[in-house]
Amino acid sequence: VATGAEAADIARLLGDFNEEYDEPSPDPEWLAARLREVMATADTAVMLIGAGAIDGLAVMRFRPSLSAPADECYLAELYIRPALRGQGLGRQLLTAAMTYAARRGAHHMDLSTTNEDTAAVALYESLGFDRHERRGPDTTSYYYEIDLPGLA
Amino acid sequence: VATGAEAADIARLLGDFNEEYDEPSPDPEWLAARLREVMATADTAVMLIGAGAIDGLAVMRFRPSLSAPADECYLAELYIRPALRGQGLGRQLLTAAMTYAARRGAHHMDLSTTNEDTAAVALYESLGFDRHERRGPDTTSYYYEIDLPGLA
Repeated sequence: VATGAEAADIARLLGDFNEEYDEPSPDPEWLAARLREVMATADTAVMLIGAGAIDGLAVMRFRPSLSAPADECYLAELYIRPALRGQGLGRQLLTAAMTYAARRGAHHMDLSTTNEDTAAVALYESLGFDRHERRGPDTTSYYYEIDLPGLA
Repeated sequence: VATGAEAADIARLLGDFNEEYDEPSPDPEWLAARLREVMATADTAVMLIGAGAIDGLAVMRFRPSLSAPADECYLAELYIRPALRGQGLGRQLLTAAMTYAARRGAHHMDLSTTNEDTAAVALYESLGFDRHERRGPDTTSYYYEIDLPGLA
């Protein structure tokens, strides 16, 4: 589990992630400062995998559950460097993140991915993640998002 | 926007919601206390609709964004009493929730629903929510969840 001292490295890796998926990426220095800020609170934890260099990361956001005296954990990012994929690092990292989240008091984890990322879909489903709202294979849970208008 | 004084009413409505969808529901008194606790922080806001009685509610969870100097808002619940559906209350409530979230400093809202809830899908898509990760209609964003093991 990373500390704020690793925020600059984490910010660079998240920048690579955004670039790979054509997502806009914030300024790395701004992101490092933001990471230091949120990693100092109970609401965010970043887990790293790799020997020496960072090969991948998981970003977890926590919130108090409204259904049990526990937290919920939103897995905001799960990323393995492209050259290192297909070796089970994602599975190893996600399994460790789930254990960490449970030990920290989370009773539930949620995440989103796209149907096009077949490796991610296979990983999540093999670990027991459900996209059917527990209602069986005829249902699909969709993840929706929208940018909210800036208010001048 | 509700205050902690309305927590007991909100807990009852969330209980009705869970019952309708066959979800396990926490003890109403526990939930009311939990709501009071989280509504006193910046991470949770509940918006109500109705004249006198509460006809529906939106539960918003906020977290600092890692992509912009703003918050993200997770719409955890959107619920209108069954007898009052089909009159546009959900649209009115969600539009107000989006405006409220933007004014509070959120630049992004996300939520999940199931393909079986065609009214919800139609509502979200008509308001511009995207389930394609902005990559066009051939993609679908899936929402995955899992219960984490309790640790003795």
